Amino acid sequence: MPEMLEIEKEFLQYVKKMQAYEEALGLMYWDLRTGAPKNGVEQRSQVIGMLASEHFQMSTSEEMAAYIASLSSKYDELTGIGKLTLKDCKKQYEKNKKIPANEYEEYVVLQSNAEHVWEQAREASDFEMFKPYLEKLVAFNKKFIEYWGYSGNKYNTLLDMYEPGVTVDIIDKVFGELRDVIVPLVKKITNSDNKPKTDFLFHKFPKEKQKEFSVKILEQMGYDFNSGRIDETVHPFATGLNPGDVRVTTRYDEQDFRMAIFGTIHEGGHALYEQNISKELIGTPLCKGTSMGIHESQSLFYENILARDRAFWECNYELLKEYANGQFNQVSIDEFYRAINEAKPSLIRIESDDLTYALHIIIRYEIEKGLFNDEIKVEELPKVWNDKYEEYLGIIPSNDAEGVLQDVHWSGGSFGYFPSYALGYMYAAQLKNAMLKDLPNYDELLREGNLLPIKNWLTEHVHQYGKTKEPLEIIKKATGEGLSAKYLAKYLEEKFSKVYQLS
Amino acid sequence: MPEMLEIEKEFLQYVKKMQAYEEALGLMYWDLRTGAPKNGVEQRSQVIGMLASEHFQMSTSEEMAAYIASLSSKYDELTGIGKLTLKDCKKQYEKNKKIPANEYEEYVVLQSNAEHVWEQAREASDFEMFKPYLEKLVAFNKKFIEYWGYSGNKYNTLLDMYEPGVTVDIIDKVFGELRDVIVPLVKKITNSDNKPKTDFLFHKFPKEKQKEFSVKILEQMGYDFNSGRIDETVHPFATGLNPGDVRVTTRYDEQDFRMAIFGTIHEGGHALYEQNISKELIGTPLCKGTSMGIHESQSLFYENILARDRAFWECNYELLKEYANGQFNQVSIDEFYRAINEAKPSLIRIESDDLTYALHIIIRYEIEKGLFNDEIKVEELPKVWNDKYEEYLGIIPSNDAEGVLQDVHWSGGSFGYFPSYALGYMYAAQLKNAMLKDLPNYDELLREGNLLPIKNWLTEHVHQYGKTKEPLEIIKKATGEGLSAKYLAKYLEEKFSKVYQLS
Repeated sequence: MPEMLEIEKEFLQYVKKMQAYEEALGLMYWDLRTGAPKNGVEQRSQVIGMLASEHFQMSTSEEMAAYIASLSSKYDELTGIGKLTLKDCKKQYEKNKKIPANEYEEYVVLQSNAEHVWEQAREASDFEMFKPYLEKLVAFNKKFIEYWGYSGNKYNTLLDMYEPGVTVDIIDKVFGELRDVIVPLVKKITNSDNKPKTDFLFHKFPKEKQKEFSVKILEQMGYDFNSGRIDETVHPFATGLNPGDVRVTTRYDEQDFRMAIFGTIHEGGHALYEQNISKELIGTPLCKGTSMGIHESQSLFYENILARDRAFWECNYELLKEYANGQFNQVSIDEFYRAINEAKPSLIRIESDDLTYALHIIIRYEIEKGLFNDEIKVEELPKVWNDKYEEYLGIIPSNDAEGVLQDVHWSGGSFGYFPSYALGYMYAAQLKNAMLKDLPNYDELLREGNLLPIKNWLTEHVHQYGKTKEPLEIIKKATGEGLSAKYLAKYLEEKFSKVYQLS
Repeated sequence: MPEMLEIEKEFLQYVKKMQAYEEALGLMYWDLRTGAPKNGVEQRSQVIGMLASEHFQMSTSEEMAAYIASLSSKYDELTGIGKLTLKDCKKQYEKNKKIPANEYEEYVVLQSNAEHVWEQAREASDFEMFKPYLEKLVAFNKKFIEYWGYSGNKYNTLLDMYEPGVTVDIIDKVFGELRDVIVPLVKKITNSDNKPKTDFLFHKFPKEKQKEFSVKILEQMGYDFNSGRIDETVHPFATGLNPGDVRVTTRYDEQDFRMAIFGTIHEGGHALYEQNISKELIGTPLCKGTSMGIHESQSLFYENILARDRAFWECNYELLKEYANGQFNQVSIDEFYRAINEAKPSLIRIESDDLTYALHIIIRYEIEKGLFNDEIKVEELPKVWNDKYEEYLGIIPSNDAEGVLQDVHWSGGSFGYFPSYALGYMYAAQLKNAMLKDLPNYDELLREGNLLPIKNWLTEHVHQYGKTKEPLEIIKKATGEGLSAKYLAKYLEEKFSKVYQLS
């Protein structure tokens, strides 16, 4: 093997320092959300600001520019990791450099103010308060798209930040197919006379017992507690500081055990991804999940596809009863299975279920695409929003708070992020389908609580690559085909026909 | 008020960034010691190394040199905080710059190897293994003393790193006085026929209950849980990330509640100091305890002087019984009070008691002073050590592991650190004496569990200043006199005469 170029070594050392900042920042965020004393928050925020700015400066420095120039000229002599790291740094550099500094500063201030105003507007359920801020945020992003350039659709440039390689053309197709399956399915279950009973779900399940059960399930999934820990938080998340330190957090509702159990499994899916990235990527920007959507595919696979499967509970229902306070003693596994798969149209995305969730996402996608292609104006949003909810879900928000103002994303300028949630769900169903070819005994594995072959399959086909492959490359290599909506469509039709006993 | 100079503003901003690194590093250390997953430790150590090196480079940069030069020339125009910050940075700069870079690198490698070898040597109880490393460590420090310069005694330069302003002349006097009181007192209690019974201390006291009681006592002391939290660790410590975030850690032994209770009170004393530093010092290097000794004065005041006082338990003994598992039901408060004040000669410093502890320190001080004044050779240490233990404590270590090899400090090159422990104890007794003039109802306050006036007195006279005053300045201002051994001597004589019913 030839020696690594001296300049590549230096570059990788430089990049490693940038990752050190990211790890320190990651720990500080985790700490703020899991129990940092409130009187220290103001100073901690300043510390975070200073270190984040140091990291940003390194990504746009003259030193970085020099590395990019000289490594690009010796591209063929670089190692594989060197090439991909260079590509990643170059993309980031250009993205950050193309926006004039004064405009970026103005934008940061706007973001911060907008989030504040959005909170008040939602409180008052008054879109008019938020409108001027949202208009500016959209205008800034339109300008950024011009700076960054675009191909095909302007909205592609925003999508690319969260799901590189996935374009409006692709999403239009798969979301369209999905919508055409889900909308009639939702109508059917709404009219079904065989709705599951759910009253037994809402009895007191002590927090400590929920935690113990969650830990058992994480262990079953293959989550390594020597490379992680579980803590409590208000808004659950998983964070990978490095593959040896990937933490999950969860929230307990003693009157609804589903929040912690399914929430922990969801975050556990994210965590398995980060724990199993190839160790040779540590210290590079490639040592993380490749996209929002692929990340979500891992969490949704475990939360919905695996943990809402009857076979999973054939193994774990008796165990759940041991931890619960008698609430399931008179409940058959079939009743339980149907209850945890209840679905119905609702107004709030984050409170919705596994069937209707994708519709909430599709609505947001269609709106964002319209905004950035000048087909929808910000002032029209409340009406457009409510019309789409009526069309797709058959219900209409009674005010802006439960309508167009419900999500924080836009107030932070995050446009292009929403589609990832539904893309992840599609990836998950498609991966499951491919997995079945290698693991035809999948149902049996669930019944035995032997989930390691499943984790190993995902590690082999997804986790290990980190950010060295783009989302669609991973899907193509793992499943033999491009992104397709049909696997999720099929999964949802089968699942909900069974749960609602549709004929 | 005149405007702050532009250059001072810039300098303080530069220094604030250095403090941001310190806070991030502090959080990473805390995390490593309180539950970071073990598989992430290796990478975390590298992250710490990179950020610490960034901080070190800032302290010795050309930018720092330029600030020092230009601010020194405008010294009279600086604000109070500017002047003191400049002084602190200059001291650090000169300390770091005077050692040639290659020698310092060699020393860092030596430290790391020496600590490793020390562990093995202690395991094997073989001083000969450690000797060549210790000889090199001493030789390096002698050379550093030449680089840094010294006045009076060479050892003063090492003392200055931990206890600025405190010299060999001062310590010789106070340690001599202390030794002359403690040595005969230890003999008396060793020969006493009135030794306290202690068997009832060692019953099972469940960890959760110990924790709940510890929290109650921290609250009584005035520890603010909105500016802190308590966690579990192997080697307890307190850490001040900023005054709004000062964390304590503790260790539980279910067969000996004293470890957690008195340990928590000790760390609580450190934490009260850091929580109550004046907020205007945040972001400067002055926002920390002024010295090891003054810090220890706060922890030892609470742990020994306050929490081993009978009046304190007149308030809290019934409460303790509520949390304990019945172990004190047949024990009178007098028996309890005597038991928690048991003292006897022992070989291991960290397992010793509040009376003999100072002798362990005095022995180490005399040895270090001898080493750096060429009066003791490293090879003579085992003999010198054992002779002093026989002379001062009347017992002789049976091997090096329980003798000269017991402490980690020397293996890390920390010479000059030990005296702070005993200085802190003297400061504590002296501060208590001054406090009594302002709070003549001190005993009453303890009996009522009304400890806030005590905390407030310490904040007024010690805490608030942070590092803006040197140790002896604080003592002089608070007590009206220089450091004196007589208050600790008197305290120990009275306390142990009472506990051992000496006539």
